[in-house]
Amino acid sequence: MQVSLLQQLVTGEKAQDLTAAAQAVAAAKGRGADLAVLPEMFCCPYDTQTFPVYAEEAGGPIWQALSAMARENQIWLVGGTFPEREGERIYNTCFVFDRQGRQAARYRKMHLFDIHIDGGQHFMESETLSPGEAPAVFGTEFGVFGLAVCFDLRFPTLFERTADLGAKAMFVPAAFNRTTGPRHWELLFRSRAVDNQLYTLGAAPAQNLSADYVSYGHSIVCDPWGDVVAQAGTEPGAVDVTLDLNLVDEVRRQLPVRSARRPL
Amino acid sequence: MQVSLLQQLVTGEKAQDLTAAAQAVAAAKGRGADLAVLPEMFCCPYDTQTFPVYAEEAGGPIWQALSAMARENQIWLVGGTFPEREGERIYNTCFVFDRQGRQAARYRKMHLFDIHIDGGQHFMESETLSPGEAPAVFGTEFGVFGLAVCFDLRFPTLFERTADLGAKAMFVPAAFNRTTGPRHWELLFRSRAVDNQLYTLGAAPAQNLSADYVSYGHSIVCDPWGDVVAQAGTEPGAVDVTLDLNLVDEVRRQLPVRSARRPL
Repeated sequence: MQVSLLQQLVTGEKAQDLTAAAQAVAAAKGRGADLAVLPEMFCCPYDTQTFPVYAEEAGGPIWQALSAMARENQIWLVGGTFPEREGERIYNTCFVFDRQGRQAARYRKMHLFDIHIDGGQHFMESETLSPGEAPAVFGTEFGVFGLAVCFDLRFPTLFERTADLGAKAMFVPAAFNRTTGPRHWELLFRSRAVDNQLYTLGAAPAQNLSADYVSYGHSIVCDPWGDVVAQAGTEPGAVDVTLDLNLVDEVRRQLPVRSARRPL
Repeated sequence: MQVSLLQQLVTGEKAQDLTAAAQAVAAAKGRGADLAVLPEMFCCPYDTQTFPVYAEEAGGPIWQALSAMARENQIWLVGGTFPEREGERIYNTCFVFDRQGRQAARYRKMHLFDIHIDGGQHFMESETLSPGEAPAVFGTEFGVFGLAVCFDLRFPTLFERTADLGAKAMFVPAAFNRTTGPRHWELLFRSRAVDNQLYTLGAAPAQNLSADYVSYGHSIVCDPWGDVVAQAGTEPGAVDVTLDLNLVDEVRRQLPVRSARRPL
């Protein structure tokens, strides 16, 4: 299974970012990708005040654009995230589309990013966003996969529950920053891979030094042993990898961690 | 709070290993330690067939020797583990003693080590051992601490539950091997520290190349940011560190992960 993580630049111009995403998905398909992954908030500046301004409903223009990218390229698409409006609420939502452009999954970020590091990053997603309520998986011709978004990485139970639903890989649109990125980005992707013996794949926006919130970049792929298979730098680009999903079963057989869990 | 991890050599001679442990605890006290930690199976070869031979009851000679080490040095002692017999069953048990030599906690390893890595380590603790049933913490004049043993490191929920019981540090007698050690030892201690924002401390036997099961060594201390504070090599020796328990509260305030957990 060929996967491409698309480390896109978020410019703040929604139409421009959507066009760039469509070009990147088509290029990934051209390189043989079965599935492409866009970053968290790939067409909206990562800022609590812009979320309500850029928010759209499921079925709206962003959703339609993502569906078209999947359908026109006959590719699986993990559509990053965008601020999804439903009634009074806004969620940080990842939609997945199948090769026909049909919605295959919706995952709303469950753990909102509220931090205030002394002398470092401050951010309060909960000022304008609401949290999702449940894990999500989707089935493909390759197997079952799960979804998480960024700060969710710090919550082992979400990954365990999603693995229990059958996920052999977790796709994680994410945007760490220059405080938490160097410290925890790689560690958390490796940890969640080792804990659950599955692939973890993180797609981040490229670094935009003129943004209020500067993404760490470093889109990453870890295998079920927790080894880093591939990792980007901070520039725009793509990370292309081949996933060997038999390795998930192999690791679980040799090191039976999941079956050794105790009620706690 | 001064802690000393005692990376002892396990010779297979129980009396000799107990004497060496007593000397190491006294030496740690001499260097100012408030608490000393012995390794997993510090006076018993790590082998499923030797566990029943070396097993003793709580209150037996090993337990008495540990109690005396704590009392005579007026030091807190996390007494590594030994095979604890109770009726028909044998557990991989860690006893903790206070400065008066009274038992302050008993933790029986909950997750038994059953693995068979192709071309690597094979081990089946469950051939002769039974698993423990519950997490354990103990209170000191410095705060509350928790216990885990080796393979438990791969189970995030145990650490989460123990942190919920108030633990600001987790003491982990452990003996990884030369297959899983290079791959996962440091990663798991860092992960469990970051996930729960507490100190993790692992005390391992020194490497004994003539043993059936060769310990990885590398006794380690990670702080609540997940940074490695200190780490041994493979030789016998001690790791002395000062824990700043205020850092636990500081990290939890700046990056409020534990309060952001969702029911899952």
